[in-house]
Amino acid sequence: MILKPKYFEDFEVGLTFESEPSFISKEEIIDFASKYDPQSFHLDEKAANNGPFGQLTSSGFMTLGKSFTQIFEMGVYDGTSMGAWGIDELRWTKPVYPGDYLRTKIEVLEAKKSTKNPKRGTARLKHTVTNQNNEIVMTWISNQMLRTKI
Amino acid sequence: MILKPKYFEDFEVGLTFESEPSFISKEEIIDFASKYDPQSFHLDEKAANNGPFGQLTSSGFMTLGKSFTQIFEMGVYDGTSMGAWGIDELRWTKPVYPGDYLRTKIEVLEAKKSTKNPKRGTARLKHTVTNQNNEIVMTWISNQMLRTKI
Repeated sequence: MILKPKYFEDFEVGLTFESEPSFISKEEIIDFASKYDPQSFHLDEKAANNGPFGQLTSSGFMTLGKSFTQIFEMGVYDGTSMGAWGIDELRWTKPVYPGDYLRTKIEVLEAKKSTKNPKRGTARLKHTVTNQNNEIVMTWISNQMLRTKI
Repeated sequence: MILKPKYFEDFEVGLTFESEPSFISKEEIIDFASKYDPQSFHLDEKAANNGPFGQLTSSGFMTLGKSFTQIFEMGVYDGTSMGAWGIDELRWTKPVYPGDYLRTKIEVLEAKKSTKNPKRGTARLKHTVTNQNNEIVMTWISNQMLRTKI
């Protein structure tokens, strides 16, 4: 689903939107881990089988980047995002495995105009990432800066 | 600096350690952004010059992965990490630019043995990432699961 770019004023508290699913491949898990999270259970299938999750799992940092990209690809931030200043309460609740399909739902928790810059506001966005079995694998709150309409 | 692998019991509250610096290249910023954070100010130099930071900047998710990897490469998690269950209070306090050198300092804030699994504990670790000018560019707290010695 592609949406129109959304400005600060469009991020109304309570508004939700949901991404299309993205596929998680073994190759991508290993490639990401080799650069940004070189733990054996993200990097090496054999070692992972004897590791804490019993099989290869995605780096939580990769799941985070995929989740952001899913929302970005909906078009809501096109020309309106001014970056984010932080993340709160990120929780990895279930492992993510090769072959999973992940989907991200966003909910606007709060929206606050900047007191310093009238052309900017922050939306506090709860992201809930689920797999193909509707299990929640990750939740996180971003503090997303957005341009105002004026 | 390479340290010995550290078990849960070794993560004493107040203990600190600091990574070597890592170089941030323009190529890596663009490559990461194309997969996990496709915003124009992380992806396209010309667009970035007119964007909110006035030049190309690293995806905050990339800075996060680099920061974790810096600590991982010190050897403290070798065979002892059981993954992390969450992140709290992540703040991107300054932009990260191509050519920067980043360093991560870790401080143990809290350590708590699991009530469910005596072979596991969680260390709450504050990460402070600085650039070559000693400016803090990011802080984050991880909730890192670790094997116990027994």
